[in-house]
Formats: sequence, structure tokens, C-alpha cells
Amino acid sequence: MIAIDWGTTSLRAFRIDAEGRVVETRRSSDGVLAASGRFEAVLRAAIDGWEDTSIVMSGMIGSRQGWREAAYVECPAGIDRIAAAMAPLDVPSLPDRRIWLVPGLSVKDADGTHDVMRGEETQICGLLRELAAGRHLVCLPGTHSKHVELHDGRIARFRTAMTGELFDLLRKHSLLSRLMDADAPHRPVAFARGVDDARRPRDLLNQLFAVRTLGLFGTLSADELPSYLSGLLIGHELNDLPAGADTLHLIAADRLLVPYGEALARRGVRAVNHADHAAAHGLHALAVRHGLV
Amino acid sequence: MIAIDWGTTSLRAFRIDAEGRVVETRRSSDGVLAASGRFEAVLRAAIDGWEDTSIVMSGMIGSRQGWREAAYVECPAGIDRIAAAMAPLDVPSLPDRRIWLVPGLSVKDADGTHDVMRGEETQICGLLRELAAGRHLVCLPGTHSKHVELHDGRIARFRTAMTGELFDLLRKHSLLSRLMDADAPHRPVAFARGVDDARRPRDLLNQLFAVRTLGLFGTLSADELPSYLSGLLIGHELNDLPAGADTLHLIAADRLLVPYGEALARRGVRAVNHADHAAAHGLHALAVRHGLV
Repeated sequence: MIAIDWGTTSLRAFRIDAEGRVVETRRSSDGVLAASGRFEAVLRAAIDGWEDTSIVMSGMIGSRQGWREAAYVECPAGIDRIAAAMAPLDVPSLPDRRIWLVPGLSVKDADGTHDVMRGEETQICGLLRELAAGRHLVCLPGTHSKHVELHDGRIARFRTAMTGELFDLLRKHSLLSRLMDADAPHRPVAFARGVDDARRPRDLLNQLFAVRTLGLFGTLSADELPSYLSGLLIGHELNDLPAGADTLHLIAADRLLVPYGEALARRGVRAVNHADHAAAHGLHALAVRHGLV
Repeated sequence: MIAIDWGTTSLRAFRIDAEGRVVETRRSSDGVLAASGRFEAVLRAAIDGWEDTSIVMSGMIGSRQGWREAAYVECPAGIDRIAAAMAPLDVPSLPDRRIWLVPGLSVKDADGTHDVMRGEETQICGLLRELAAGRHLVCLPGTHSKHVELHDGRIARFRTAMTGELFDLLRKHSLLSRLMDADAPHRPVAFARGVDDARRPRDLLNQLFAVRTLGLFGTLSADELPSYLSGLLIGHELNDLPAGADTLHLIAADRLLVPYGEALARRGVRAVNHADHAAAHGLHALAVRHGLV
């Protein structure tokens, strides 16, 4: 089968054999934004030379801004419900393929707040087979960090934090950016200070201005400020962890494993790292459950 | 005398008579950013035809990025200490004038966090003569909203919230902007909902993503979302008000009086509006105290 993780800014295609092993991987920058209007050509290029009949795709390609919308499934939901809600996609120039879009998930919290994910549910499906029954907390950090609560193999609820997007906006376009060396490497001491400061009883809007003051008074240097800001934002994100959380499963790109691991350590939470290619395993698991392979 | 409020993006010049009345006002977009490198020419144009000897200037013109730095005075500070710390500025082409820069204020809070203001201290000096002794809370909303605590005619402490800057970044440059009609007029119902939601026990990073979901599910329309976001951010700013606050003095441009008034009403806090030309009165009061007029 062919598994495709097609997000906003990139596309990853995996060829998977009958035992569920990834045998070939392709990657392109033709994400949904760049590929808009020519999805069919991009898909054909991505699978060129791969003859497998079944193609399963997840991510923003199944959103309203994507190729076709695969409606959100409401939580709680496990592999069964997600697989059952996969939407078939008819591609005229690929008549011999069976192509499916994985739905996103939505949740309505006790206080009435809605949240959504699209793409991450597939990575979690890839992780589920590794976890025992019971309650687990999973975090998929990034532009929009997802914090997910699993109960006995189902996604019970989740929350999104705009951590990565806000970090980029502030680091590149705000008044703070003028004081910062935006491309400085990770500075663990400044980062830890940010994580700790996020626990103070102050609102984030105030703490963001204080980043400026730390630079102005020379308390932190231009190459320490981005790490401090990152720590402050990740620290705020972690303030929303359920009380008593002691272990968090991380599905993250390598560059995010270090800061999230350090931040969790400072909060006394154990981080368990999982491979970033959970998407391929999740797409395979959904294809199996749907009877495609 | 001549009073000049010279901020980052604009300059306002006031001619003030012997009784302290503003008799003429000029305004230009030659703020510190635009005027950088040609401060002398901009000042001469701003006071063209005004022969008064004393010129007092406040705002970012006295910062490190301005003409010359007038060092921060540390809180608590009243008119006396601010006036005493005014820095003389020698302008070769204006040998007959006595030109002074008003210092900014800095504060170190009990938890070690520094904060700064530059320009707002002068507006507060203009307000001080209207207030009785005792304790007062003052807010100067804007790009960087200042919340100031006055004790018996002195600025005891203050906090800054990056409310306005974050609103602009999110409304214009974030993923949220795609769902919004950025130029929609104020929508009181959506705004009030944002103010109320800011009280939920959720982190702002999560609540910002929820703005997207409200748009995605059609709960709020494209022209309601900016008001909701504004309410959410102003609500978070007000979460930092001291417990038991019942009256807040507002020094604000007209366009901000309405939303801040509405937000304060929802929190049960009485708003007292003060004219935005407090800067001219403050500069006059400082000149009097310094013995210039």
C-alpha cells in the first residue's frame, strides 16, 4: 500500500509492504498550500513508479482547504471509528487505485470549547499499538501543539496550543525581534529560566513584554532571548497539563525533542520519545482496519 | 513653553501659555522610527514659528533608539523625582532654546521582574493633579498597555501587557487572520464573549487556537472574530488587575475607550475616562516643577 501524510507545508509518501514495514520514503515541499489547484499532478508524481492499489492519505489534504473534506469525527474515537469514517476519493486519471482520505477529529470540552486536529490522529493511531490499555498523555509539539488524552486505546479528548506559531510571529515580526538573534542555537539555561517563569502568577501578555525588558537591561543577551521566549511559551503550554501528570509520550521531530524533554524534566514529568514516522504506521493500521490491505 | 510628545510612530507638539493652557497643537507622523537620523530637522519643523525658549520632550525620543537616552528613574516616583531627572539636550542649530528630555520609569516587582515605560509617565503626571491622595489604578491601553498603581501622588508600580501588538500580529499575520475580516467594526456581543472566555482556567495559547475553531465551526462569523479575539486578549490583560479593584482610570484614544469600557463593565470595574491630551498637561507640570516656566 501507499501511505501519504499530506500537511499544510509538506508531503511525505511511504511505500509499505505486506508486513507493514516502510520500504521506501519520499518527501516533497508540495504541501496543501503549494499544491493547491494541482493536487492530482502532485499525487501522481509522489507515487510515480509505485503500482500498489491502495492509497491512504491523512492531514490537511482532507480539509476544506484541501482536495476534498473528510468530515471530522467527534471524540472519543479509536482506530475503528476513524477507519470507518475514511472518505473515498475518485481521481479520474488513476482509475485503478482505491484512494481514501482519513478524517480529522473534533472534541467538545466540558466548558463548551471546541478543538480540532487533522493529521495528528493518524500519528496517534500509529502509536496506539505500542501502548498498553489504560490512560496515557500524548503530546505532538509544533506550530499547533496537540495534547491528547488516551483512554483504553481511544482518543478521549485533546487541546491545541498555538505555541510554535506564536513563537515564530514574536521572534520574527514583533518588537521583541529587534532585540533577538532569531537564528541563535538552543541555550538550555535561558530556556529553563523561561520554563520556570511561566509558572509565575502573571498573564502571558505581561510576561511577553518582560522578555523585552530582560533584553533592554542586559539580563539576557540577543542570542539567549529566543531560547528564553521558547521556554516561556512551552512552559505556558505545559501549565495546561492535567494535575498529577507524571509521564508524557512525545511524537516530535528531533529538533523539538530536546526542548520539550528539558521543559518536562523541569516540571517533574517523564518524557517518552516516539519516532516521528508514526504517521506511516498509523496509515497502515487504518488501512488494515478498513480492509484495504 | 513648547511640549512635545514624541513616540515611536508619531509626534505631537503643543504650545502652552503661561496659565498652562494648550493654545496650539501640531501633529506629524515623524515618529522616532521615521525621523531617525534627522531629529534636528524634524524638531525645527515641528516648532517653526514658535519662539518660546523652553522645550520639554517625552516619549521614545529619550530612549536608546531616540535622540539621546534619558536614563530610567526607578519607581516609586512622583513628579518631583521625574522632573529632577530630566536630561538637557544641546541642539547646535537652536542655541537660544532650553531643551529637556523626560526620563522613562522602571520598576522591579517583588518577584524580580523588571518593567519599563517611556512617555506614559508624562501622561500620568498630567493626570495626577486631578486625583485626590490615596490609591488609584490607571490604565493606558494600546500596543503595550500599561497598568499603573498610584499611591499618594506617586507611581508605585506598573505592569505592561503586549495586548495591542499581539492583536495586530494575530489579526494580520497568523493562521487566524485567514478566517477573519480584519477591518470589521467593533461587535459588542462577540467582544463580550471573548472577555468572558478569558476567565476560563485555560492557557492563552490554547484559547488562541480555539478562536480558529469558533470560525471553523461557524460559531462566529468572519466579521465577529476580530472582536472576539480583541475581547479575549483584553480580558487576559484584565486578569492581572489586583484583587478588589473597583475603579480604573483610563487614559486612552477614543477608539479604545469603548472596548476597554465594555470589558471593565463585564468585570464589575468602573471606568473613569480621561482626555488623551494628558501628555501636554504632564509636560507642563514637569516644566513648572523643574523651574523652566
